[in-house]
Amino acid sequence: MRIATNTKIEELRGGICAVPGVRAYGLRENNKGLALIEGKGKAVGMFTKNKMKAAPLIFTQRLLLETGRIGAIIANSGCANSFTGEEGMRNANRMAELASAALGIDKSEVAVASTGPIGKQLDIGMIERQVQEVAKRLTSDPEGSTAAAKAIMTTDTFPKELAIKVGDVTIGGIAKGSGMIYPHLHLATATMLAFIYTDAELDVGTMRTCLKDACDNSFNMIVVDGDMSTNDMVLLVSRGGEAISEEDFKAGLNYLCKALAKMIARDGEGATKFIEVNVSLRGAPVEDAKLIAREILRSPLVKSAIFGERIDLACGRIIAAIGSCIGTNTSSNSIEVVSMKFRGKEREVEVVRNGRILSTWNREVMKGKEIAIDIVLDVGEEEGKVEEEATATAWGCDLSCDYVMLNASML
Amino acid sequence: MRIATNTKIEELRGGICAVPGVRAYGLRENNKGLALIEGKGKAVGMFTKNKMKAAPLIFTQRLLLETGRIGAIIANSGCANSFTGEEGMRNANRMAELASAALGIDKSEVAVASTGPIGKQLDIGMIERQVQEVAKRLTSDPEGSTAAAKAIMTTDTFPKELAIKVGDVTIGGIAKGSGMIYPHLHLATATMLAFIYTDAELDVGTMRTCLKDACDNSFNMIVVDGDMSTNDMVLLVSRGGEAISEEDFKAGLNYLCKALAKMIARDGEGATKFIEVNVSLRGAPVEDAKLIAREILRSPLVKSAIFGERIDLACGRIIAAIGSCIGTNTSSNSIEVVSMKFRGKEREVEVVRNGRILSTWNREVMKGKEIAIDIVLDVGEEEGKVEEEATATAWGCDLSCDYVMLNASML
Repeated sequence: MRIATNTKIEELRGGICAVPGVRAYGLRENNKGLALIEGKGKAVGMFTKNKMKAAPLIFTQRLLLETGRIGAIIANSGCANSFTGEEGMRNANRMAELASAALGIDKSEVAVASTGPIGKQLDIGMIERQVQEVAKRLTSDPEGSTAAAKAIMTTDTFPKELAIKVGDVTIGGIAKGSGMIYPHLHLATATMLAFIYTDAELDVGTMRTCLKDACDNSFNMIVVDGDMSTNDMVLLVSRGGEAISEEDFKAGLNYLCKALAKMIARDGEGATKFIEVNVSLRGAPVEDAKLIAREILRSPLVKSAIFGERIDLACGRIIAAIGSCIGTNTSSNSIEVVSMKFRGKEREVEVVRNGRILSTWNREVMKGKEIAIDIVLDVGEEEGKVEEEATATAWGCDLSCDYVMLNASML
Repeated sequence: MRIATNTKIEELRGGICAVPGVRAYGLRENNKGLALIEGKGKAVGMFTKNKMKAAPLIFTQRLLLETGRIGAIIANSGCANSFTGEEGMRNANRMAELASAALGIDKSEVAVASTGPIGKQLDIGMIERQVQEVAKRLTSDPEGSTAAAKAIMTTDTFPKELAIKVGDVTIGGIAKGSGMIYPHLHLATATMLAFIYTDAELDVGTMRTCLKDACDNSFNMIVVDGDMSTNDMVLLVSRGGEAISEEDFKAGLNYLCKALAKMIARDGEGATKFIEVNVSLRGAPVEDAKLIAREILRSPLVKSAIFGERIDLACGRIIAAIGSCIGTNTSSNSIEVVSMKFRGKEREVEVVRNGRILSTWNREVMKGKEIAIDIVLDVGEEEGKVEEEATATAWGCDLSCDYVMLNASML
């Protein structure tokens, strides 16, 4: 994770409201929520690579390009405002107007985000009512951050928020998951949403570099189902005022994003187990290591085997998943699975050693709620072999009947 | 599908045994089956692109390279002989020796195939016993083909076989599915297995071209779960003797492979519905149309929605799946979903017209066991836009709780 180990990071209460000058609140009616966050500063964003971008993404991308500043964020759950045509664009714009009027902030500085089912128009009347209520109750107390984090939940089962202190700087964030999670975020681009605030004094270029690096090692390394959303969005707003080195800020932002990303993976739709995959790959670039770690967590067969606590079945299916994607970024034609280990909270078990599956092993390790899988791979003696050892970590969850029933709307 | 519409194709009984000179049989003990097929001729194969190739694939690829001929095929189910190291290679070789001895066929002409769990060694003692029994009962009667097709089943619920007559030429095939199905076959390369025999008089180059074309439009267009196997294999053996034009043979082979591929999709693990996706894409190459059709059928969210008969949820998720992969083979940055239609056996319903989701529709269409989804897409006015309209068809199935329970070994 390339975090400078000498950077001291301390966790705080309060989520985004731990950052001085940030006020937030949110409420829910039935399955439709609305959150408002107020806090002015320079802003950068990462948005889904999905080519079918939702209206709020188009709106907010344009805003960042034109002003590079965010004064407030208005975000709703219960409707993605995606594949909604011209009416969708008008509604995204209307959301910004409503927040602007309620908070007295220039509309050109209001970012808009949405999450929920695709292909339905927003209930803009409901949002108009909700904005008034939420604006009245904006607060810099920790409850404000939690209320906002709850308002943007869809199938999430718990709100996701965290704040940290690194040096004199505070970084706070809220996020939501929990289906259609296979983010591919890129600059000036999950339906994961994350809104991050800080008081670090940074230039926009550094913010952009740090956010991309943090997303690549956190949100972009989580897989719930392998479906890429039209609405994924991560925003970083810096209010400025506190000095920090780029290295320390990067370490802090990575820490925060990784923690929020793991919360999303842990709360994947229908998840009964949280899974961490660590890949160490000799002789191929880090992109291959990242792809392998993600593909293992994308495999319905691997995920079902882990749901069934069947380490024996999971092992072979992981091997097939590795073979299916190695060489995507290189010309590698072969790969050796040097070792594979499953770790639970209390015990661990080696299943592959020196390229051979061990004949017997203890399956008890699969009983827990958290499973780590450590894999060492070697692409062998290839021409043009990369000498370095690349490492990557991805996070995800198992595939349960509840995932199917939830998404079949049968629960 | 580019099948010459004036080629007359007639379906026959008998599977591979409909081809003169082909004898087959197979048996099962518990979950372990063995099939033998005898029938000499020029041979070509398609093998999985998975870099973690199973021992029987390495063995059979080498055989095709060295001799280009197959005299017999020995195939077992219940163990993939994959990730089994040197012992696995010795066992694949031993299988060939056993078939060679039992049938009096040169070992250099015996192809080997395996399907089942990965990472376990073969029970070669059991195979020795089974070979004797199967060899004794080899027959050119239709029962031989069916017995062989049953022997190679794993989680399949029915045997898959078909024969056709095109001109004077007979083409017969058997195949198996039904999990880890996302074949990426390429020349001189599914755990789908298919063995195809014909008496067409063809040169090896034509056989190779025709098999690649047929696989690309059939087995490579089916998706059960998106997991790519280490053992996928399609073999075509031509005994020669009957003249046919390349065009007619291609049409016949496409017909046969498409029919077998659809049987595999229909019998996908836990499947309750068979799904056909037809994509018509204006302004982008056919590779994009194929990718989009396959990605829709790979999406756990789309598949769960169809399992739940929720056309409303399926529609938005299909749109997200389209956006996630358009532009993989082009620089297309936008795409319009011009229309989307769901068709059942008796009724059909339009859900998107002229780029807009229609406000209401009848959900009855989802009740049947067979659903077709017809989608028209346009990449818009791009620079370098391809003028042609590309079309692609993919086949798959829904994602049910039974899929999860089966692969969690909880059924």
